[in-house]
Amino acid sequence: MKTFVIALGLLAVAAQAQQNPAAAAARNWREAHERAIVAEFMELLAMPNLARDESAIRRNAAAVSAVLEKRGVKTRLLEVPGAPPVVFGELATPGATRTLIFYAHYDGQPLDPKEWATPPWQPVLRNGPLDHNGDLVALPSSGPIDPEWRIYARSASDDKAPIVAIAAALDGLKASRIAPRSNLKFVFEGEEEAGSPHLAQIIENNKGLLASDVWLICDGPVHQSRRQQIVFGARGITEFDITLYGPSHELHSGHYGNWAPNPAMMLARLLSSMKDDDGRVTIEHFYDGIEPLSETEKRAVAEAPDVDRDLMRELWLGRTEGGGKKLVELLNLPSLNVRGMSSARTGAQASNVIPATAAATIDIRLVKGIGTEMAARRVLEHIRGQGYFITESEPDAEMRMAHPRLAKVAAIPGGYNASRTSMDLPISQLVLRTADSARGPVVRLPTMGGSVPLYMIEEILHAPTITVPIANHDNNQHSYNENLRIRNLWDGIELMAALLAM
Amino acid sequence: MKTFVIALGLLAVAAQAQQNPAAAAARNWREAHERAIVAEFMELLAMPNLARDESAIRRNAAAVSAVLEKRGVKTRLLEVPGAPPVVFGELATPGATRTLIFYAHYDGQPLDPKEWATPPWQPVLRNGPLDHNGDLVALPSSGPIDPEWRIYARSASDDKAPIVAIAAALDGLKASRIAPRSNLKFVFEGEEEAGSPHLAQIIENNKGLLASDVWLICDGPVHQSRRQQIVFGARGITEFDITLYGPSHELHSGHYGNWAPNPAMMLARLLSSMKDDDGRVTIEHFYDGIEPLSETEKRAVAEAPDVDRDLMRELWLGRTEGGGKKLVELLNLPSLNVRGMSSARTGAQASNVIPATAAATIDIRLVKGIGTEMAARRVLEHIRGQGYFITESEPDAEMRMAHPRLAKVAAIPGGYNASRTSMDLPISQLVLRTADSARGPVVRLPTMGGSVPLYMIEEILHAPTITVPIANHDNNQHSYNENLRIRNLWDGIELMAALLAM
Repeated sequence: MKTFVIALGLLAVAAQAQQNPAAAAARNWREAHERAIVAEFMELLAMPNLARDESAIRRNAAAVSAVLEKRGVKTRLLEVPGAPPVVFGELATPGATRTLIFYAHYDGQPLDPKEWATPPWQPVLRNGPLDHNGDLVALPSSGPIDPEWRIYARSASDDKAPIVAIAAALDGLKASRIAPRSNLKFVFEGEEEAGSPHLAQIIENNKGLLASDVWLICDGPVHQSRRQQIVFGARGITEFDITLYGPSHELHSGHYGNWAPNPAMMLARLLSSMKDDDGRVTIEHFYDGIEPLSETEKRAVAEAPDVDRDLMRELWLGRTEGGGKKLVELLNLPSLNVRGMSSARTGAQASNVIPATAAATIDIRLVKGIGTEMAARRVLEHIRGQGYFITESEPDAEMRMAHPRLAKVAAIPGGYNASRTSMDLPISQLVLRTADSARGPVVRLPTMGGSVPLYMIEEILHAPTITVPIANHDNNQHSYNENLRIRNLWDGIELMAALLAM
Repeated sequence: MKTFVIALGLLAVAAQAQQNPAAAAARNWREAHERAIVAEFMELLAMPNLARDESAIRRNAAAVSAVLEKRGVKTRLLEVPGAPPVVFGELATPGATRTLIFYAHYDGQPLDPKEWATPPWQPVLRNGPLDHNGDLVALPSSGPIDPEWRIYARSASDDKAPIVAIAAALDGLKASRIAPRSNLKFVFEGEEEAGSPHLAQIIENNKGLLASDVWLICDGPVHQSRRQQIVFGARGITEFDITLYGPSHELHSGHYGNWAPNPAMMLARLLSSMKDDDGRVTIEHFYDGIEPLSETEKRAVAEAPDVDRDLMRELWLGRTEGGGKKLVELLNLPSLNVRGMSSARTGAQASNVIPATAAATIDIRLVKGIGTEMAARRVLEHIRGQGYFITESEPDAEMRMAHPRLAKVAAIPGGYNASRTSMDLPISQLVLRTADSARGPVVRLPTMGGSVPLYMIEEILHAPTITVPIANHDNNQHSYNENLRIRNLWDGIELMAALLAM
């Protein structure tokens, strides 16, 4: 009976999806050009794309520009000294009164190639997820590509997929002679994964060029149920490297053990003072000032599918944090996360020493009402409250002796505040109607858990931002073996076509 | 006035040192052969000597045998399958009623060459400690070698120095025609730094060969005041690798942060539950059962020089643990030390993930009355008491889901119990008198902080062990840039000569 209801629901979804002619046109095009689309994608993924690798990132910018130019989009590079360029593209529609900006980024997260099953910039196809023993397969020479196959490469999902989806969508619209109704602009950034340190300045320098009615942020994953989701905000972020100090150099753990303080143990104590056993942050005032959700937003959160049990199975989790709240609720709260910890060596590399230093990198996700400076102040106050003297630069012997509890806390540049666009705006309603008609009833979320630099767009341009993700949630984004499920690329092409034509 | 008293004391020490003719003979020999002694040492240090590197460790065994054979010592290798050999040597003294065994080890601690200023097995001389800007210098072609120079190489101090000191001492005794009064045996082990996993078996197989009145353990550093010390015991040791589990793979910290449990934070909580802020171990019963010190031992501890303030300056420490107790007192207690911690990546390598696992390696130093099994049981009980299910092997998805708090705890093989020889035994008194006469009044300690496998010698052979170290305390033993101060080699040659002749 339950299966029957679900099947009926899916039929309804499919029927509804066909209501959008742009999406249908894109599907027809895609079905006839699957191999070419994937080939163009893989070519783009074969380019190393770390924001800090200047020559590589410029090669990416040139390739991304070429992808747009091929579709008749006029492009230019928006530059500030010392930064990867923004690829800007424009497709003017005579008589249009509305301007849409499609944002994506072409740089990828830093990585350690040793952790990857195949080299991160040598894209490969697998006939299923790697953690379900997906095998390497070749692009078939004819016939459709199995939509459950995946493409593995850095930025396959985050965030080159939308660039290729937009390109294919433009092809599909053109082939069906569906003209856009809005002016279309494209902003493809080259240093999002480095924290977008120059985006504000580039926007500031190009306010006229970047004027629009809405920024559609093509980044992040769809819902874990695999349903399309439309997201109206993103959490902000601020990050810190914390280093604690023990003896001037590693000491023999026998000759000095239980006399010389151990910085690894000190770090354990400091970090554990920041959260309780259920994951609630215990830093004073950490949750103070959160801007509450509107009634529409609360309803959207309540209506979001509950996938927590499935996700727990998928991620091998026996419990979750957050006092029994659903994931989708918890994303509307700020978080504190330990990205990594290191002190001397472990396992086979360990030697019997008292380490000289211990380090952790933490990130704090922010929500509306709690800005980066406020959050940073609270964290620093907490560290001081644990008895630590805080320095921003590497301490010398004198400082280490003067301050037995000494923490070097380096704020990682590039943090930014959270943002949230009201779901009740007319443009929000238009986007939701369009997406519903292209992809069936979509999941509506007030915020995503991740961070994209929406705040500066709202602040400088006073434009609303709405996030229209296409990647599968299980894409290993920001980790090794990042991948995109082919079905998500196909669906993304249809969504993009509908939005481009709206 | 204080300086004057110290100077008088040093004069008295110097006068007393000359009372031992064997030490004086060794000094004369050394003064005439400094370059040859250092050259022989550096040749030995140029051989990679990890216990697990079978061919390399056998080359060391051959070289060490040759060093002894050159001095007329008859050698053989004591073997068990799959283990580095013990180099056994014997120098019989007709009519002697006492037999002394000199123990040292020729293998070195595992290392990461990247951490070393110069390659670990390319010994170099520096005109001072590296952390005081000691520069590389060549062995002078004539004249004495500055005794404040240091030799940098793996095992320079731990533990090839005593082997070379014994060799030079034997040369000095022979040159002055001073005949040993005891039968002399030498046991040079090849896997001490791997935890001596086969030493017990080798001793068991060679009980007659290894019979003696005392084992003189030539390992470890002299007192931090640079005075000679004689040590009557060693702490035992047991070690664990602990791994905690989060999600099946690294997750995006935004999309899953404050929902998916973070194993780095869990590890921080677990470790911090094991010690309080002053370094006192909070594992239940951790200190129960400690065998108390005798009156002689208590007096020795009380009389040991207080170097804590100097050490703190040397090690850049603003505080110490242990409730205000002196280092020398604290070494008579068991300790728990975090050797290293790791989870995902930190600093420039960090990415915004929730790590999948977090690991720590800990060591526990044991004292008389608390054996390895007892200590291990207490640690495991504590981990269970924190809500963890313990597994010994890598858990699968099912186990991870069934036990949300899951710890893989792998006991590192090769731990052993503490040992302590009474200072009141006649052989203890003889060793102390001999050392006093050779090196001035020596520091007497009931135990060293470090661990050497004395327990099995006492248990299997019923022979007392007394440790006669020669290395400088600031030798970076067990870490990178291990070194030996030349003065310590010179002093060690005199001490060894006196002991060999006693």
